[in-house]
Parts: sequence; structure tokens; C-alpha cells
Amino acid sequence: MALMTGEQYEESLRKLNLQVYMFGEKIKNVVDNPILRPSMNSVKMTYELAQQPEYEDLMTATSVITGNKINRFNNIHMSTDDLIKKVKMQRLLGQKTASCFQRCVGMDAFNAEYSTTYEIDEKYGTEYHKRFKNFIKFVEENDYTVDGAMTDPKGDRGLSPSQQADPDLYLRVVEKREDGVIVRGAKAHQTGILNSHEVLVMPTQAMRSEDKDYAISFAVPTDTEGITMIIGRQSCDTRKLEENVDMDLGNKKFGGVEALVVFDNVFVPNERIFLNGETEFAGMLVERFAGYHRQSYGGCKVGVGDVLIGAAALAAEYNGVPKASHIKDKLIEMTHLNETLYACGIACSSQGYQTESGNYLIDLLLANVCKQNVTRFPYEIVRLAEDIAGGLMVTAPSEKDFRSEEVGHYVEKYLRGVKSVSTENRLRILRLIENLSLGTAAVGYRTESMHGAGSPQAQRIMISRQGNLEHKKELAKNIANIKE
Amino acid sequence: MALMTGEQYEESLRKLNLQVYMFGEKIKNVVDNPILRPSMNSVKMTYELAQQPEYEDLMTATSVITGNKINRFNNIHMSTDDLIKKVKMQRLLGQKTASCFQRCVGMDAFNAEYSTTYEIDEKYGTEYHKRFKNFIKFVEENDYTVDGAMTDPKGDRGLSPSQQADPDLYLRVVEKREDGVIVRGAKAHQTGILNSHEVLVMPTQAMRSEDKDYAISFAVPTDTEGITMIIGRQSCDTRKLEENVDMDLGNKKFGGVEALVVFDNVFVPNERIFLNGETEFAGMLVERFAGYHRQSYGGCKVGVGDVLIGAAALAAEYNGVPKASHIKDKLIEMTHLNETLYACGIACSSQGYQTESGNYLIDLLLANVCKQNVTRFPYEIVRLAEDIAGGLMVTAPSEKDFRSEEVGHYVEKYLRGVKSVSTENRLRILRLIENLSLGTAAVGYRTESMHGAGSPQAQRIMISRQGNLEHKKELAKNIANIKE
Amino acid sequence: MALMTGEQYEESLRKLNLQVYMFGEKIKNVVDNPILRPSMNSVKMTYELAQQPEYEDLMTATSVITGNKINRFNNIHMSTDDLIKKVKMQRLLGQKTASCFQRCVGMDAFNAEYSTTYEIDEKYGTEYHKRFKNFIKFVEENDYTVDGAMTDPKGDRGLSPSQQADPDLYLRVVEKREDGVIVRGAKAHQTGILNSHEVLVMPTQAMRSEDKDYAISFAVPTDTEGITMIIGRQSCDTRKLEENVDMDLGNKKFGGVEALVVFDNVFVPNERIFLNGETEFAGMLVERFAGYHRQSYGGCKVGVGDVLIGAAALAAEYNGVPKASHIKDKLIEMTHLNETLYACGIACSSQGYQTESGNYLIDLLLANVCKQNVTRFPYEIVRLAEDIAGGLMVTAPSEKDFRSEEVGHYVEKYLRGVKSVSTENRLRILRLIENLSLGTAAVGYRTESMHGAGSPQAQRIMISRQGNLEHKKELAKNIANIKE
Amino acid sequence: MALMTGEQYEESLRKLNLQVYMFGEKIKNVVDNPILRPSMNSVKMTYELAQQPEYEDLMTATSVITGNKINRFNNIHMSTDDLIKKVKMQRLLGQKTASCFQRCVGMDAFNAEYSTTYEIDEKYGTEYHKRFKNFIKFVEENDYTVDGAMTDPKGDRGLSPSQQADPDLYLRVVEKREDGVIVRGAKAHQTGILNSHEVLVMPTQAMRSEDKDYAISFAVPTDTEGITMIIGRQSCDTRKLEENVDMDLGNKKFGGVEALVVFDNVFVPNERIFLNGETEFAGMLVERFAGYHRQSYGGCKVGVGDVLIGAAALAAEYNGVPKASHIKDKLIEMTHLNETLYACGIACSSQGYQTESGNYLIDLLLANVCKQNVTRFPYEIVRLAEDIAGGLMVTAPSEKDFRSEEVGHYVEKYLRGVKSVSTENRLRILRLIENLSLGTAAVGYRTESMHGAGSPQAQRIMISRQGNLEHKKELAKNIANIKE
Repeated sequence: MALMTGEQYEESLRKLNLQVYMFGEKIKNVVDNPILRPSMNSVKMTYELAQQPEYEDLMTATSVITGNKINRFNNIHMSTDDLIKKVKMQRLLGQKTASCFQRCVGMDAFNAEYSTTYEIDEKYGTEYHKRFKNFIKFVEENDYTVDGAMTDPKGDRGLSPSQQADPDLYLRVVEKREDGVIVRGAKAHQTGILNSHEVLVMPTQAMRSEDKDYAISFAVPTDTEGITMIIGRQSCDTRKLEENVDMDLGNKKFGGVEALVVFDNVFVPNERIFLNGETEFAGMLVERFAGYHRQSYGGCKVGVGDVLIGAAALAAEYNGVPKASHIKDKLIEMTHLNETLYACGIACSSQGYQTESGNYLIDLLLANVCKQNVTRFPYEIVRLAEDIAGGLMVTAPSEKDFRSEEVGHYVEKYLRGVKSVSTENRLRILRLIENLSLGTAAVGYRTESMHGAGSPQAQRIMISRQGNLEHKKELAKNIANIKE
Repeated sequence: MALMTGEQYEESLRKLNLQVYMFGEKIKNVVDNPILRPSMNSVKMTYELAQQPEYEDLMTATSVITGNKINRFNNIHMSTDDLIKKVKMQRLLGQKTASCFQRCVGMDAFNAEYSTTYEIDEKYGTEYHKRFKNFIKFVEENDYTVDGAMTDPKGDRGLSPSQQADPDLYLRVVEKREDGVIVRGAKAHQTGILNSHEVLVMPTQAMRSEDKDYAISFAVPTDTEGITMIIGRQSCDTRKLEENVDMDLGNKKFGGVEALVVFDNVFVPNERIFLNGETEFAGMLVERFAGYHRQSYGGCKVGVGDVLIGAAALAAEYNGVPKASHIKDKLIEMTHLNETLYACGIACSSQGYQTESGNYLIDLLLANVCKQNVTRFPYEIVRLAEDIAGGLMVTAPSEKDFRSEEVGHYVEKYLRGVKSVSTENRLRILRLIENLSLGTAAVGYRTESMHGAGSPQAQRIMISRQGNLEHKKELAKNIANIKE
Repeated sequence: MALMTGEQYEESLRKLNLQVYMFGEKIKNVVDNPILRPSMNSVKMTYELAQQPEYEDLMTATSVITGNKINRFNNIHMSTDDLIKKVKMQRLLGQKTASCFQRCVGMDAFNAEYSTTYEIDEKYGTEYHKRFKNFIKFVEENDYTVDGAMTDPKGDRGLSPSQQADPDLYLRVVEKREDGVIVRGAKAHQTGILNSHEVLVMPTQAMRSEDKDYAISFAVPTDTEGITMIIGRQSCDTRKLEENVDMDLGNKKFGGVEALVVFDNVFVPNERIFLNGETEFAGMLVERFAGYHRQSYGGCKVGVGDVLIGAAALAAEYNGVPKASHIKDKLIEMTHLNETLYACGIACSSQGYQTESGNYLIDLLLANVCKQNVTRFPYEIVRLAEDIAGGLMVTAPSEKDFRSEEVGHYVEKYLRGVKSVSTENRLRILRLIENLSLGTAAVGYRTESMHGAGSPQAQRIMISRQGNLEHKKELAKNIANIKE
Repeated sequence: MALMTGEQYEESLRKLNLQVYMFGEKIKNVVDNPILRPSMNSVKMTYELAQQPEYEDLMTATSVITGNKINRFNNIHMSTDDLIKKVKMQRLLGQKTASCFQRCVGMDAFNAEYSTTYEIDEKYGTEYHKRFKNFIKFVEENDYTVDGAMTDPKGDRGLSPSQQADPDLYLRVVEKREDGVIVRGAKAHQTGILNSHEVLVMPTQAMRSEDKDYAISFAVPTDTEGITMIIGRQSCDTRKLEENVDMDLGNKKFGGVEALVVFDNVFVPNERIFLNGETEFAGMLVERFAGYHRQSYGGCKVGVGDVLIGAAALAAEYNGVPKASHIKDKLIEMTHLNETLYACGIACSSQGYQTESGNYLIDLLLANVCKQNVTRFPYEIVRLAEDIAGGLMVTAPSEKDFRSEEVGHYVEKYLRGVKSVSTENRLRILRLIENLSLGTAAVGYRTESMHGAGSPQAQRIMISRQGNLEHKKELAKNIANIKE
């Protein structure tokens, strides 16, 4: 099958029978729900751009399985060039959507599973890798979107999976059958699942032998019986429900939402199981997925940052101060920080290396360094954007006031900035900055930058492990002429 | 009249005939409107605490005009001790409301007007100071709340008031009568006006002689004919309209809202005019008001910070990681930053000095340093709070899902943290952090920290002016043994 | 006796029979040694300024013991006003010497001992307080300088005093006699001891009962038998030995040096013992001394910062770029950071409170916050100074080259900045910046800012203890409507 | 000729007749001068490592001119792989010398000249590129070290070259002859010239037509008549003169020094002139050189940082606190910052592109971002190292005291850390940290990180130019739905 157009993708979603709840009610038409649709639009953009010749090089790749042209989001990276293009594709999508476009988790899970299943099979003679390649082939042939699901609710974070008061707080196998297993548990913070055809489940952390039942990885269709999705509240979510409102949204078209996904006794057939009890490989799978995903943030958030920098520059222009030296300096600082993130994304890709399975892994140290910076710089970029925008960004009256017969003329008159720019356009750009700083998109640009692909401390632990302090100590002893 | 109780204050507001618009519609009952009421509750708290013996020392003062006991928010500061108590009162209110309680602008305007009118009279033989003291007396006797209104819309910020394409973009006198003046223009970002009985208008910046008509200061009742208030949108504002919703608000009871206040040909009687064309005093008034108001942030935001630190500590506890060293270290850092702000608030108060009129002004350099830090540290405190809270803070399902028969049990089960704390309480604390980081209160805790009392660059200019670089150059020359 | 003049002070030092070693040799004439003399000059300045009417209010105080006029460095602080004047005096001295003037440790030790001895006596009926007051009286009458000595070498920091492989790594009582005790051990990093008449020894940390012998505090003359001082190397120390060199020093006149002070079986008479085995009071003494000393840094380092800011401003001027916006902005930032430190120094003083003994203690939380900022901001101020100065600050040829017949004209010609300033003056100011950034004074301005009065982690522990997290948690629960 | 061994290199230097002055005297034997020799050792290491098989891939390359194996420091980069290897080679050398190894300027000048001369010739039909290739060939054949000399003294930085009071403050052509030109002026901050056989001079900034005489680039032997070098003072420089001192140096073997190099009517033959009056190409040459050199810092300073991190880790170990969580966290932070610099160095290399001449240029935006980070992070790494080291790093007695019969035992006894490590080794590691923080190496690791390859503001201007703000504004308009 050829790559789907955006329209075909949208239609394919309509066929799914997802169990989605929001505000206590079941959503009948997920695709057209005004709160949810922008997140679909973001994913749809990954299909649309893949159709455009100018983006073909970034958006598509050649399948290592079939040799066919595929969407790069389904690609197994076979070179450092592939890894770099991945980052560039992510920056592009960030620029086009100014939000989370959700497909990275699937791509990153694909590549982590690809090499890990190979190594499990090498050790145990299992056939996970073969199964997984079949799954990839199936996904590629249908040009599907896959959600990678890792984060368990975790309950008391001071306790291991099997120590929890409720054993289901980490997803686990509750029954083994001849033809498969029954699983129970949940995955939190799932950004892309609503817009995915399949979900690829992974364990959430390294496991010890007593947590054998939790060392499970598999893929099932998103509308499999027993799967329920409950949408998370975002800041400003219900603005999208307001009638005739466009300006107030900041970013009307695109977004991203998160769901708590419950697996309530879901059956997984054997051919879709890729890890089952080989506890010592859970850590490898997590580390590799997290590594790829920490690389991802050096692309996607940079693209969103580009939009925010552009918006701040426009706000300065519309306020009449584009040439103030402190404004220019703040825009430079925003650019500097944003490009530092990009540099980290590129560097960990450039220094990638081949795994035993043949695909390429990023440099783990640099990928963790990348993500660690992502937990800091977007916050400072936002702060600078708020500085440039001015207080109006949070005190401007609503679009309804702006359109009102009674007071609209006041808003029009008094919220005008420079003469050459309409009040409406000025407000639009301020709302975009609000959206990214405080609104729905801030969830993705700020908090997800903090916790996505692992919270800051997780990266610090990896930096500590990968930093090779012993080698550095030797270097210092040589210079200091220390003999022992 | 004795100090009003909270209830009396609330009743007094009901008598006002304010012209308030929101979402394109006129609000009939301002006091009970669910979006606006929390902001009233915050001001009401300033009345309630003044009734409590344990807070009497901080919340009340002795009038320099009448010798009566008054609410400290109406006080003319007559000592550095008064200045310090002001900051402590503000911290207290921040702790009790976790939001902007709005009365500082009036208090700060009072004190700036008090000394400036005195000095104008000294120079010109005018009687502004006497008028102003009469106004204070009137306010004290009624225990009223006064909104201090300074910020004009400003239009093209590269142009002076009289250069604007629309001359009304700075509030100005459009007609002079024997008994008073007619003014036109607007004041933006007015946080307290909804809950105020009077509005005290000041010019927004230093003026040159050609801007004479803009050098106007006066007070009028908030329901004076010609005054229209248009409420600004805040992040998550409409959550307050959701029925049966409590948890999702984070801070159900308190808040603060901002309004664009239009003065459309408003008449001001002579006895309420405190500056009128003495352009060279506009700068003094602005500088002093800004100085007091920059001091204020060293109190109020610290109080809000206390709540956020407490919330983060609870979140860590509920997540099961209160003893992780990195968590403890982040709480220390939050405390350190918050107390640094407080130190600045206290220091500029302690180093205050008496003006010619007899009241006390803060140390201007330190007050600007205080505010400059406020434009930075709350952002970092928020970032650390988001780090500690975890991603659930922005992905947790709605209260309606939590209460739902169909999926509520899933939320209850899977979003449980430590066993000893209910899921509801865990979600409540996460929603409070969301409220302060991204929601309605973030408007006050972040963006207002940035722009309130002047944007960061305004403080830098003052720091430059007050820093006495010439003296420092002399010190350096002495040490370096430079003779010229 | 009246306050000593600078000359009298210098003469008084000549009478001391100090055992001082440097570069492996015993120093015969400490006062005139070119490496050591600048540190004497700094202390001398504390005597000279006390003689000048314009500084009398800051530099002198009235003895609580005798009612006589004394040097403030020997003062027992009896009010918050005293505490504030202390900080101002320290800033003044920092401005006049651009180095460590060394007397703060004595002053801070005085005040910590004063209140602690009182409380020990209250509990145990001992007479430490009386003895200590006698000691103060003796010091005041002679207008002496006292070194406060706290920091033990500590050996393996993972072990307690009595667990060390060598029990002397913390100073301890090795023999008890009827008339006194014999002590052995060392105190490290002693900045003022060379220029002090007496040394006041305190324990270095809280002690447990097994460390009883280490809970010892006393005072003895600095030339007591058994005391040996070994001078620490400073960056660029030997430049002071170069003949005919002035410019290269940056700060020819003033400095500060540190010594390792060994107590090799030193006898202490009973009347000079102020703590002896009351282990539970060691912590109080340390905490109070550290608190006062952390306050001190909000004065002295600010004064040094003033000089560095002035120097950077001159460097910009001499380079021809005083009006570049980025230069002005960096000077503002330096000022802002420096004044933030001052604000913390003032605030912890203003919020001081009376101890049982009657003297005033600073606010411990704010004093620790003060010092924590001191471990950061001077580094950033230095970085900005280096930025403004330009690379020449570290690559300029020596003064000997500048004075050389052969190449001096090249230096003169090519290192000229703006036409109106001599090359010599330009180089002088660059050398001053070098001195404070990398040279002898950097030891005081940077590393001492880091570790003096306790390393950063020590403050964080105190901030954690003093931050009252439980109260903040209650505040958050109230706002979040959490009932338990 | 084959690549020189370290010994051969050293011998080749002895043949040069350099005019070097230091402390007002002419240096007769430059190679063996104790202050200068460590800088020679650093360069020598670039020859020694090139002889070792394990480093061959990084240290050597294949000449694009002759096809011969050459030292990579003389390489013309013909691929992004070459650019990446350059950075890795620099990190390696930083690790091996913990100082500036000086050859990067020549390598970076080579590559900037290579492409710029090609483009000048394309426009003007000149033969600079041919000449320059001949020069490269000559250098390669002799395996020479070339100093790239760019920075003029600049005088009043507010004035252009031809506006200076003294026209020689920028190096210029003072006479044109048939066979060449006579130049006069100076180059400041020359790190490698002492240890170079040739000096390649470039203009220091973009030029306008009136500055034609200043648009000159050429190469001459370093001992050409008229060239005088005056060595700059470094912090702690004369420690290297102290007899029997080893420990106190921190890094006895390696270093780097800077010189002011005067060109007093130096003749340059035509075949060595590579730019002469084509003013519009001065900017290109500077921009490309600066770009390459800003990349370089993403390698060399990272290597030095590795040593400092190792030293701090050892200090923690020797102090007995390697497992304290705050220590571990600081080491992680140091690693994180250091690797962020490396990521920037790698990224700008990976994203390099081919010039018209065929060689590869780095990505200019990312190279400037790289250097901008280098102006910040080493300072923070140093601060953290000072934190971990403890105050002893600046207060420890001299080696002579340590070796002294009289007091050596005190130093030995009291400055012992953990039992298992000798006091000597503890002091050695503290001295290394001192060396990098405050001593001779701090000049390279701190101030050179600030100003080398252009001061911070220079990078900000480039970031502003390369940041493509217009594109970002378009992105924001698309998202905000702004139509104009």
C-alpha cells in the first residue's frame, strides 16, 4: 500500500472503535471532537508532509524490511544519517504544528525493540525479533501510526512493582494462556494513542527477577477489547469548545492531548509478544527507548521553539520596540538556547553507532545531555517570550469582547500597538505566546519537556553512568603527576 | 466608622453600579459571578484578617491623618517599621490566598501621592496635598478599597504620548472646566478595580512639556459615569464555570482578575485632582509609586511562593519520594530563591528614608533589585515545582472523570500514589501546582511577577541610575593607584 | 585606653613574638614582609577609619561592658541597628581595601560566645559568661584585634572527630590541669591571625558526647608558646616580591593571607576557657558564629564587588566602549547581583532578635540565604568583569616590559586604548581586575566567598532546617482544600 | 619529509632566531626557559601523539595537496568527517595537556584562507589561492607549526582602523614595493607564536573601502626581521621559576603563554601575500576563521574540562566524601555542561558544508552557539570544582613548607585527608584545581574561553545574523493564522 494521504489517515481513524472518555462521558466521535481534533491534525500533518516533494527526503525513508518507501516515523534507522534526518524531521514538524505531533514514541519504540529483541533471541533462542519484524512489516504496509506506551502509573515511587499495595500499578501479565497472555494495568501520559492504530507496550523500568510478570512487551490494536482511554485535562482545554472563537486559541488547528490508558484484562496473542519475563532485558529496552526519545526532544521542541521565537519577534514589532537593544538581545538569547538544544540532538545522532541487530543507536551520553538541557531551556525561552510580549498577553479581553458591539470598539482602539498592524493581529500573536506559555501547548512545551522521556533526575543518573569518571580521574592524575 | 468585616465589605460592593463586561456581555451581578468572585474573596480576606487579633499588628495601623485605627492597606507609612510590616502583611496575604489580593496598588499609590503632592505644593503653591489628605480621610473613614491605576495602553511604544496616532492611547485631559476636568483614555491590567470603591489614577511615565495634558492624577468612584471595565481572559478562566467542579480548580476560593478600564469622557471634580499639568512631577510620582510597588513584590509573591513550596513538598510526599536527595535539594533551592526575594523586600524597607512630607520611601535601588529578582525567581520556583510534581500534573483526567461511574474507579485505582493518601488529595495538590504554574494563578505568579510594577528593563534602567557608578569608579582608581 | 591609631596598631604588632613560616622559612619581621604586609594594611585600615569623624558612626560603638567608645569590630551587638551598621561597616572596608580585612571572624566569634556562654551558665551554673565578659573588657581596653578560629583540618570528612585515624585532626584537650588545659590540633584557613593580638578558638561543628574533648573554646595571645603559623600560598603571591613592581600587583597596598595555625600542646588558663566538654553547646556556638559570619559576607564582599564594578566600568571606558548597550547591561547585572547580596545582609540584620544574654542575633534563615548567594554571585560578577575587560587582562606584558628601554615603547604604543587615557592607567585597571579575578584577591573574592563561613552545602542544610516546610505544607493544604 | 618526532620538533625550534622579551629582558634560549618551556611541551605533544598508532586516525590526515600523510593540524578539511575528527583531536589534546596546545589557530587560518583565497581569485583573477596552496605544501613538507595571527590591539574600540589616533593600532601596509610590501602594526594575545615556524597574518575584522591598507593577509617565518614578541604575564607565571618546586605548579609539564607580537616594518614577499586591499573579503576571511575557531573550543576546552572533572572527583575522594549526594550531583552537572560544549562542537561539524574551493566549512550558526556556551560553562565548571575542592585549594602552604624540616611534619600531619591517600597526593590534586581555576591554566580555561575566537558579543551578533528571524516570524504567523 502506498503512503496514506492526510485524508486517508483521517478516514482510517474513523474506523477504529476506541473507548475514549473525557469529562466523565464517552466520546462517540473522537476524530471530530473539538478538544481532540487538533491533536489528530498534528499527526495528520506527518502524513501530509510526507506527500510533499520538498520534504520527501526528510519525511520518508526506505524500509530495511521491504525496501519500500515508508514514512520515516516507521523507519528503522540504519545509519547516523538516518538519525540526523530524524531530528530534522522532528524540528520541521514542530515548526509546522507548534505542538506535540505524537509519533516519536512509536518510532523510538520501534528502534529500541528492534535491537533489543535481536539480543534477547541471541541469548535465549526466542523468536521475538522475527515477530517484531513481522509487526513492523504490517505497520509499514498499512502506513499506520503506532503509539509507544511505556510509563506506568507507578503508585508509591519508593516501592518496586511487586511491592506496591495494588499490584496493578505497574502493567503485568495476570494470566498465561497457550495462545497468548492476559495483561492488566495502565499506561499514563499517552500523547499519541488517540490517533494511533496500534499500541506498542514496553515495561517502564529495569526489573529484578521478582518482577518477572512486569517484564512484558507487546503490541495490540488500539481498539482491542479491554482498553479504555481517559483524556487528561489541559490548561485552557475548554477554550476549544467556545463557539465562534478562533483568536483566543492561539493555535486553533494543532495540539496534542494525553490519556490515561487502562488495560483491563487485555488479551495479547503470542505473535504480538516481544518480551515476556526476560527481566534483565527490560532495562536495556527502557534505556534504549529513553535514549532515542531523549534525542527526539532535540528536534521537536526546537521546532516549537522556532515558532515561539518568531512570535516573540512579532510581538516586539507590533509593540513598536523591535530595535530596542534589550529586545534584540533577548531574541538572540532565545535563539542561542534553542540552537543549543538542536546541537545536542544533532550531536548524539552524529555519534550514533550500530547495534548487533544492525540498526543505529544514538550516543547515550549526549542524548541524555540533550534531554537534560530540554528540561531547562524551554522554560527560559518561555520566560523571555513573556518578557518581550508584555503583560497584555495575560490580560487582554476575550475574542467575544473584541467582537462585541458594545465594547469591541474600546478593545480595538485601546489595544492597538503600532499603527501599521491591526489590533486583531497583535492579539493573535499574544494569544499564541499565551498558548505556548500557559495554555494547552505549554503542557507540551514546558511540562512535557520536563518529564517526557524521563524526568530530569533520570538523565542525571544516566549522565553519571555514562560519564566515565574513572577515565577522567586517570587524566587528572597524569597531569598532577600523582603516582600511587 | 469601624473597620468593615468581610461581610460588610462584600455588601458595600453590591451597592456599586459598575459597568463590567466579560465574554462580550455585561455582568449584572459582579460580586457573585463565578469567574470574578474569587478575586473578591482575595480582597475580602484583607478585611477579615484585619479583624483577627493575631494579625492586628500586621493588618492594622494608626492613621497619620486621624489617629484612628485603620486597615494597613490604607496606611501612610511613617517609619521603616511601617515599611517592613507592609511587606510582612503582604507575605501573609499571599500565603492565605495564593493569589493577587489587589490592594497593594492603592496603598502604594497613596504613599507616592502623599509625598509628591507635598512637593508640588511646595514648588507651585498648589493645594494638591491638602486635597489628597482629604481623600485619604474619606477612604479611611469608610474603610474603602482603592485601586491605583497607572498603566496606559501605550500604543506604539516607540512613540511618546502626544506622538501616538491615536492621542487617547495615554489617558489625558480632553476638556478643562471651572469645576474640574474631563478625561479620556484607558488603564490596562487593572487587577483590583472590580473590588474597589475608588480608583486613583496616575500618569504612566515621566512626561515632557509637550505632554502636559497627560500629566494628570485624580481619584473618582469606580462607578463614575463613563468608566467601563472589560475583564481580561486568563488561562483556565472558564473552569470556574464548570458545574460541580472543585478539585480541578486547584484554588477554588481565591484568585485575581485583570481589567481593561476605559475612561470615556469622565468628569473629575477639582477637589479630586492631585496633579494637572505639572509635567516634571509625573516622573517623581511614577518613580515613587513604582518603587513602593517593586517593594511589594518582595512580600506578596513570597507568600504565594510559600504555598507553592508547600504544595511541591506535599506532592513529593504523596508520590512516595520525600527523602530522595534531589527532591530535598530542589525544595531547598525553592526556599532559597523565595527567601532571597523576601530579603530584598525587607532590605529596601529597612533602608527607607523620610520624604519632605514626612512619610517614608523605600530605598529605591534595593526596591528595583527586589523586583528584578522577582522577574526571574518565581519562574525557576515554578520550574522546580513542575519537576517535583511529575507529569501527572498536566495529564490527570478531569474531576468529572474522577467522579464518573464508568471510569472513576480507574482514575481512583491508577492515580493513587502512596497508600496512606487518597487519590483525591493527591490530585488536589497537583491541581494547585497546575493552578500556580499554568492556570489562573500563573497569570499572577509568573507574568505579573514579570511585568507588574514595570517590566524588567524598567528596573534595569533604575538600577543603572541608582547604582552610582561614578563612586565605584573612584573606589577602583584608589585601589589601582590611578592618578589623572 | 583610647582607640589606637593605625600607626599604634602597627607598632603593637611589632611587639608580638609570632612563630610564622612561609616558603619553608621562619619570618623574622612579619609586619614588614612584602607578602604579608598588605594583609596588615587591611586591618590597619579598620583602625584608621575609626579615627575619621565621617566614619565614626559606622566604625565605632559604645561598649555594653564599659560604656566606652570602642571599635565596632569589638562590639557586642545590642540592637538590629547595630547589626545593620556592622554590615555597612563591612561594605565600607571592602570598598577601601578590595580585600579581606580579617576582623569579622573575631567580631562574629565575640557575639556568638557572648550569648552561648550565657546559656551554658544558665544550664550548668558555670562562669563562662563572666570570664568571657572579662576577656572582652581586656580586648576593648587595649583596642586589640582578635582572630576567631573555627575550622579544623577535619581529615577524612566522612568520619567524626574521635573516629579519625589521627585524633588531632580536630583540635582537642589532651591534658587537664588544675589551672587550665593543654590543647593540641590545628585551625586551617586563618585569615586574620597574623595581624591579631589574641586568638579565640571555637569548635568546628556540633559534637556528640563521645567527642567531649573536642568541645573546647578558649582565647590565648597569638604568640603563646606552642602556636605556629604556616602561611598558605596564594595565586600570584610572589609578585609582591618583585622589585620595582607596582602596576602588576593590581592592588599594591591591600591584601589578606591565610595561615594554617598549629596548636602544639598549648596551655590555656582556666579564666580563658569558655566551653569545655558541654558538647551539646558546641552546635549552638557554631551555628551562631556561622550565622553572624554568613551575614558578614553580605557586607564585605559587596564592598569588594563595588570596586570590581568600578574597575570594569573604567575598563570599558578606557577601551572606548562605555556606551555599548551590552556593556551597560553587564554593568547593570553586576550591580544587580551585588546589591542582592547587600539586601540579604541587611535583611538578616533587620530581622535580628534578642538572645537570652541580651545581645542580638541575626535571622538565621536569611543569613544562610545571604551566604548561599555569596557562593554564586561573585563568580558571575567576576565572569562579567572578565568579559568587559577583554583578553588583555591576562596577556598584557609585565610592568618590567612596560618600563623597558628596548620594548617599553612597543607596549606603550600598542596597548593604548582611548587617546585620552594613558596606557599605564589602562594597564593598572586591567591588573586590578586580574587581581580580583585570578590573583591574590581572587582567593578572597571567589574561593573564600565559596567556603568562608561554611561551604555551600552547610547553608543548604540550615536553609532546610530553618525553612519550616511543615508550615508551608499546611498553607498548601488550606488552599487546595485538603482535609485529612 | 616524514612527520617530525617530538624531539625533532623541539630541535627545529632551536634553530629559530626569535626576538622574545619577558620581564624586560631578551630571552636567549626560548626553548629551555622555564616559564616558556611548558607551552613548547604542549605543542610537542601534537607531534608525539601523531607518532602513536592508537591516535593515528585522529592525529593525522591525507593531504589534499600532495596525498601525503600529514599532521591533522595542517589539514584542509575535505568532509564533515574531517571536521568531526578535528574536534575529537582537540579534545584528546586538551585531556593530555590540560592547557592550550596552540596549534588550532594555524589550522583554522589554513582552512579559512583556503576557501577565501579561492573566492577572491574567482572574482579578481588574482592568484592568492595558488600561492596559498604552495604555502601549505611548504608547511606540510616540513611538518611545521603555523601561528594564525588575527587580533589587532584595536586602540579605541569605538573607532575604525583608519580613524585611530595612531594608524598602526591595526596592522597595515605602510609601503608597497614591486617584490612585496612592508607592514607595520601588532597582533595581540598570540598563544602559539613562540612555538611556531611561520606566522599567518589575517585582518581582524570586516573592512570598509577606506581601510584598504588594513586588508592584508600574508605568511612569514616567525624569525623574520622586524618581528618582536613580548610575553604576557600570567597569573602565577613565576612559580615556574621557583627551584625544586613541582607540586605547587599543579601542572608542571604543560602550559601555554601569550605574546604581543610587533611587526615593525616587516617585509613580505609577493608570493606570501594572500589578500591585499580586497576589503570586501576581509569580512569573509574573519567570519570563516572565527567560525572554525569557535568550533575548536567545542573540542579543546572539553578536553581540559575532562581533566578538571577528574581532579574534582579525586579531591572529593581524598576529602572522604565521594558518596555525598551533593558532591555526586555537582560532578554530574560538570559533566553535563562539559558534554553540552562537546555536543555543540560535534554538531557544527556534522552540519558542515562544502565551499566553492572544495574544503568544508562548519555550520556557522551552531559554531557561534558553541563558542557562546564556552563563554559561560567553563566558569561554572570551575565554580563547582572550587566548591568540591574546599578552601584548602587556596590556603595550603607551599611545597617548600611541606618539604621543610621545621614545619613539614605539621603540614603532613594536618593536611592529610583520608588515611589511604598521602598528603602529597591530596595537595597535588588541589594544586591542579588551583592551576585551572586561578593559576596559569585559568588564563586559558577561563579568560581565553571568554575572549578567544571573539568575545561573547561577537558571537551574539553572528547568532542574530544567522538565526533567520524572518523565517521564524513566518512560522508564527502561520500558526496564529495571521493574514496581512
